[in-house]
Amino acid sequence: MNIVTSVQPEGQTTGNARSFAARLSEVAVEIDALLSRLLDDGPRGAPAMPPRLLEAMRYASLGQGKRFRPFLVVETAALFGVPRENALMAGAALECVHCYSLVHDDLPAMDDDELRRGRPTVHRRFDEATAILAGDGLLTFAFDILSRPETSVDPAVRVKLVSSLALAAGPGGMVGGQMLDLAAEGRFEEGGQRLDEAQIRRLQGMKTGALIRFAASAGAILADIDDERSAALRRYGALIGEAFQIADDLLDIDGEAALLGKAVHKDAEAGKATLVGLLGVEAARKRLASLTSEARAALEPFGAAATSLKEAAEFVANRRR
Amino acid sequence: MNIVTSVQPEGQTTGNARSFAARLSEVAVEIDALLSRLLDDGPRGAPAMPPRLLEAMRYASLGQGKRFRPFLVVETAALFGVPRENALMAGAALECVHCYSLVHDDLPAMDDDELRRGRPTVHRRFDEATAILAGDGLLTFAFDILSRPETSVDPAVRVKLVSSLALAAGPGGMVGGQMLDLAAEGRFEEGGQRLDEAQIRRLQGMKTGALIRFAASAGAILADIDDERSAALRRYGALIGEAFQIADDLLDIDGEAALLGKAVHKDAEAGKATLVGLLGVEAARKRLASLTSEARAALEPFGAAATSLKEAAEFVANRRR
Repeated sequence: MNIVTSVQPEGQTTGNARSFAARLSEVAVEIDALLSRLLDDGPRGAPAMPPRLLEAMRYASLGQGKRFRPFLVVETAALFGVPRENALMAGAALECVHCYSLVHDDLPAMDDDELRRGRPTVHRRFDEATAILAGDGLLTFAFDILSRPETSVDPAVRVKLVSSLALAAGPGGMVGGQMLDLAAEGRFEEGGQRLDEAQIRRLQGMKTGALIRFAASAGAILADIDDERSAALRRYGALIGEAFQIADDLLDIDGEAALLGKAVHKDAEAGKATLVGLLGVEAARKRLASLTSEARAALEPFGAAATSLKEAAEFVANRRR
Repeated sequence: MNIVTSVQPEGQTTGNARSFAARLSEVAVEIDALLSRLLDDGPRGAPAMPPRLLEAMRYASLGQGKRFRPFLVVETAALFGVPRENALMAGAALECVHCYSLVHDDLPAMDDDELRRGRPTVHRRFDEATAILAGDGLLTFAFDILSRPETSVDPAVRVKLVSSLALAAGPGGMVGGQMLDLAAEGRFEEGGQRLDEAQIRRLQGMKTGALIRFAASAGAILADIDDERSAALRRYGALIGEAFQIADDLLDIDGEAALLGKAVHKDAEAGKATLVGLLGVEAARKRLASLTSEARAALEPFGAAATSLKEAAEFVANRRR
């Protein structure tokens, strides 16, 4: 495809003049606005969504998230001059998948959580059936979004995004990781044995890592680039994906419930195997620092253009919620 | 795309020499074999699925269905000379979506069914969490399958299939229809009022009709044809979709539990609004006959090549399970 110069909303500076926090929140605002519009407009050429379903899908997906995954899509896409509106579409689709996974993971039959980001979970605010359907609806809607010309003028790019997101989110990715997680908790007859480090890394690489790796690789897919630069971004995605999970596990130990807006110490109580539990807090912190520095190093080929992605690696390691 | 001469498995006759039942069961055997292979091979380029998840996805999708939707894909594709292996891939993806919808609809929080096709439902055979994840996995896997070159060499065709299936299955289609169905049962505060005919048709057109319309239009999409022939097939799909639901409602009244392999009279007990309930059995039977004859008429432009699709319309109207 043609590499088009990045389109910035009017009046905004480009480059790294703005702080990381400002850039992250800018993407969050744009993703919220786009997702809200996409949901209200609904699937094109299909009947309108039932109001309760739309309400639940909006509740599940709007107004709360940091939009870290879409941020990675937007920033990696900017490295290749992909139009920002294309990156935002792919980011919105990815966020639909992320939000659906939270809705289903929170269900009584799964993690049975009552709070998410400080608000009642979807099945508490609505009901279980609505939560299941809202999740199904968001997952399906993600592929509707990716398949639209607004995501890319090139059908080959759109189908590559569909393929990559389906792999990341599917039974060999996120869904499989959640299954392994439940098994590790001893939920099924055959499960419940203590996982070793390799097994934990596999589980987390599927459950949390796969979507983050997709996010980091989406820019190159959108730009139709497959060379040492896309390989570097895949490596970066793998490193911050692992860092993300370790930081999450540390938060479960350190975090304050009020700040997190969800229950803490849940993992330890559920007997969940985590790298932090296996390696100890100090070793885990060291591993986190080394992952962060490796992630920054992976971005060296991009020079200053990748500054905010480097800051994103620090953000992952140091986040408080 | 190039229209390639239909590839028939060696030793089979073409044309309409074989009976409808034989053709239907032939497709069922092929879809089963293909789905089984696709599931065992797993998502390509992703880690292997957890064994319990794979087992549940296989249980949910293999060995039981009539594969009527894939049959429509295969037969409409044959009208345009689309290679049969391409049509089977699209049919397998569609069947994943159909099977996921059964798994989620059967869940305790939804229709709370214990039997499906004479066997325990997935959440009874496994557990609720596994059933939710197996459904999520099948839905996501469907888009993986559609995005593969084996479905079509043309990325634009693959992305059109993704888009159409996402619309049919999503919140403006099947998922939305299930939501309307639960609302009509009075499951939510705002719901529970008696539906009128237009509302029932909208509900059924989304819940059941959308996937059947997709199936009937898939051949033209695979052949990259958009003219009066594809319009005729869309019309055919809409007609048999409506017929399918009326026949289903009649079966709920007439059917024997042993033959159906699931509970009967459930709809009436749940107070579900159906066209049969609204119009009465006799008027519903007349409507069914008229839909069938309209569906046959819609296929006239294709002449004898559409014989088995005409027979499919009869099959829908007369099926006993």
